Amino acid sequence: MSTPLKIARLNANQSDFAEHLDALLAWEGVSDKAVNDRVEEIIAAVRANGDAALVEYTERFDGLSVDSMAGLILDRARLELALERITPEQREALSVAAERVRSYHEHQRQDSWRYTEADGTLLGQQITPLDRVGLYVPGGKASYPSSVLMNAIPAKVAGVPEVVMVVPTPRGEINELVLAAACLAGVDHVFTIGGAQAVAALAYGTESVPQVDKIVGPGNIYVATAKRAVFGQVGIDMIAGPSEILVVCDGQTDPDWIAMDLFSQAEHDEDAQSILLSPDAAFLDAVEASLNRLIGDLERDAIVRVSLETRGALIKVDDLEQACVLTNRIAPEHLELSVADPEALLPQVRHAGAIFMGRYTPEALGDYCAGPNHVLPTSGTARFSSPLGVYDFQKRSSLIFCSPDGASELGKTASVLARGESLTAHARSAEYRIKP
Amino acid sequence: MSTPLKIARLNANQSDFAEHLDALLAWEGVSDKAVNDRVEEIIAAVRANGDAALVEYTERFDGLSVDSMAGLILDRARLELALERITPEQREALSVAAERVRSYHEHQRQDSWRYTEADGTLLGQQITPLDRVGLYVPGGKASYPSSVLMNAIPAKVAGVPEVVMVVPTPRGEINELVLAAACLAGVDHVFTIGGAQAVAALAYGTESVPQVDKIVGPGNIYVATAKRAVFGQVGIDMIAGPSEILVVCDGQTDPDWIAMDLFSQAEHDEDAQSILLSPDAAFLDAVEASLNRLIGDLERDAIVRVSLETRGALIKVDDLEQACVLTNRIAPEHLELSVADPEALLPQVRHAGAIFMGRYTPEALGDYCAGPNHVLPTSGTARFSSPLGVYDFQKRSSLIFCSPDGASELGKTASVLARGESLTAHARSAEYRIKP
Repeated sequence: MSTPLKIARLNANQSDFAEHLDALLAWEGVSDKAVNDRVEEIIAAVRANGDAALVEYTERFDGLSVDSMAGLILDRARLELALERITPEQREALSVAAERVRSYHEHQRQDSWRYTEADGTLLGQQITPLDRVGLYVPGGKASYPSSVLMNAIPAKVAGVPEVVMVVPTPRGEINELVLAAACLAGVDHVFTIGGAQAVAALAYGTESVPQVDKIVGPGNIYVATAKRAVFGQVGIDMIAGPSEILVVCDGQTDPDWIAMDLFSQAEHDEDAQSILLSPDAAFLDAVEASLNRLIGDLERDAIVRVSLETRGALIKVDDLEQACVLTNRIAPEHLELSVADPEALLPQVRHAGAIFMGRYTPEALGDYCAGPNHVLPTSGTARFSSPLGVYDFQKRSSLIFCSPDGASELGKTASVLARGESLTAHARSAEYRIKP
Repeated sequence: MSTPLKIARLNANQSDFAEHLDALLAWEGVSDKAVNDRVEEIIAAVRANGDAALVEYTERFDGLSVDSMAGLILDRARLELALERITPEQREALSVAAERVRSYHEHQRQDSWRYTEADGTLLGQQITPLDRVGLYVPGGKASYPSSVLMNAIPAKVAGVPEVVMVVPTPRGEINELVLAAACLAGVDHVFTIGGAQAVAALAYGTESVPQVDKIVGPGNIYVATAKRAVFGQVGIDMIAGPSEILVVCDGQTDPDWIAMDLFSQAEHDEDAQSILLSPDAAFLDAVEASLNRLIGDLERDAIVRVSLETRGALIKVDDLEQACVLTNRIAPEHLELSVADPEALLPQVRHAGAIFMGRYTPEALGDYCAGPNHVLPTSGTARFSSPLGVYDFQKRSSLIFCSPDGASELGKTASVLARGESLTAHARSAEYRIKP
């Protein structure tokens, strides 16, 4: 019997609850000057020396020595080989997942639109895909084939002609599942580079690596810092914090199921956060017992223990309404509504990255194959941001085509407003189009 | 007769054209350590001292002394008073503009969607407005009522319940047009504060200023630096570079009109960029003559001269196809297609913030009242970003509601993939839902 798990037990009505919750949720991403300086230096070297810098850094940081950049390029044939090499069971599972992710994301594609006014003036938006997107895939232990699907497929559904993937292969270790996923997702080029140097190569281009318009995908602190540094030069997706789950349960789900759902988040890393809300105190006791009973069986029990003891909590609420109020305060990345009628709660949930409804929808299904994206806003940013989607790989140009009559009328209004702002060249430009 | 304007003349086929164009377009936003440190200090003071810090900074930076925070709040009645105080002509022009902007943006509102699979599993996205948005409006000379309309109306169309505006009033100078625009746009609260302290107040909240979820609107380097610093705590819109226009003309538009269109961009500030592309060399000469003839009449001729001489260019191209290739290289904020058949060029234009089509659609109409937003991606970021829109004030939550049958099937796939990633708690959580 292992040491009992010391997970926080809170009551939403205790007088110091707000302070407890604030402390539990507090998360400030590290912003280390040493890391910043190192990253700036790497970016400058890649901009100056291109491929040569990539070869050198890959030897230094990834322990992988190659004669030239050609040794860091994998072609489509190599991706197809990976798809052959994995087990039939894995190939089938990856294919099912890719197909479901694609089919869901096709609902997100947005089309150009326009309308014409009575005087013949046309207004609208032309919606087009990005030209070229870079996908960062971490190497080593955090190299997840599911992330390849979740990042590359929405880009392809958006119509992005070229998706360039970078994935470090420390000491030459290649993850065949990752390459197989890249093959299924339709990735166009793969370079076995990583770290800040890979981000710099994508942002500025080298002799071999094509310059992209946007970089997506998770990475360590060097990757995150480099993405922040090149933002503006290229687009980036969010800078993700630790992963989180908030489970709301009415007390009627099997406590072992809920315990395992909490574990599934906690096993990501020590900073991951798992919180359970229930109006049923006895149920919270039962889940705590399940956690203690099941933790011993977990492969990643050490990580889970640190995560649950430092960032987890079991919280007693008055009722499901109070649970929804807290949900909106937390704005969780993943929200599991393990209740009899999740649909009834939906209108009260304003902020959550993804909502897993009912007892049969654990987060793990969404992580892999339900269809929706698993790249979601963390650390409360669901208050103002959205899951990664096709819309992140499309952009819009406004369309304005004034008829002579329309321009004449609009010119009068624009002239008054422009003069009100003392922008008289604006006013004159508009006035030229007013009919005499 | 003033000194002839020294505007760059280039030919797209000259051997060093690419280098010339790169140099012309180069723009790196300043990132001044002194400004960064000052901004960090101001943010820390506002977080620590709230309203008191705002009162103190407003006295120090804006020369406006008040007894308490109450002196920095304008209520709805004050906004309505402003709407009465402006001229009837201005009131009419603002109302027309507000109504057209609202009507255009209503086309952008996105609705929640869902679909149900054969086994009863439901998938979709719930789309909701942000709770509260902050709008920064610069004070003094760059205080533009049109910006109030362009930022606040899309938020209101999205359904944001609370829009909080901040606008500094140096030495107590109030811009009645700005308040009148806020009144028409439906702004809920106005605080007469500015600079980094206003951004900090919106991001973290004070006793009087409510904490918001996203901050939009233009500002000086302190405001831009503060927005970058609070990003993550709240959402922000883009950090804008100098404004730009690219005019493509077939040589058949009145050269005075094109000259004034170029001026209207150049008058914004010395860093603004105006570029003209035409296959007709004689037309470029004619426009250059118009620029020289008309510049003397401009109120802001000194600014225009610096802008055109340092960042402007008249470029000869082979044909309109080559003009489109260059357009995509430049990815301009504003693109004016002053040609006989702009519709024919549209499929070749991949990157532009807004496209002004035909001879009767000068940018000035779009800046004020055509309907589309005037907050647009600058400095080539139209390659990957979009005009400000209703979609910037809505966010999405994925919906997943598995039926027991659906969960059983998905559980098998998730289990294989999770084990492939060594995430065994994920696998077990999925396996609990597989039917025996």
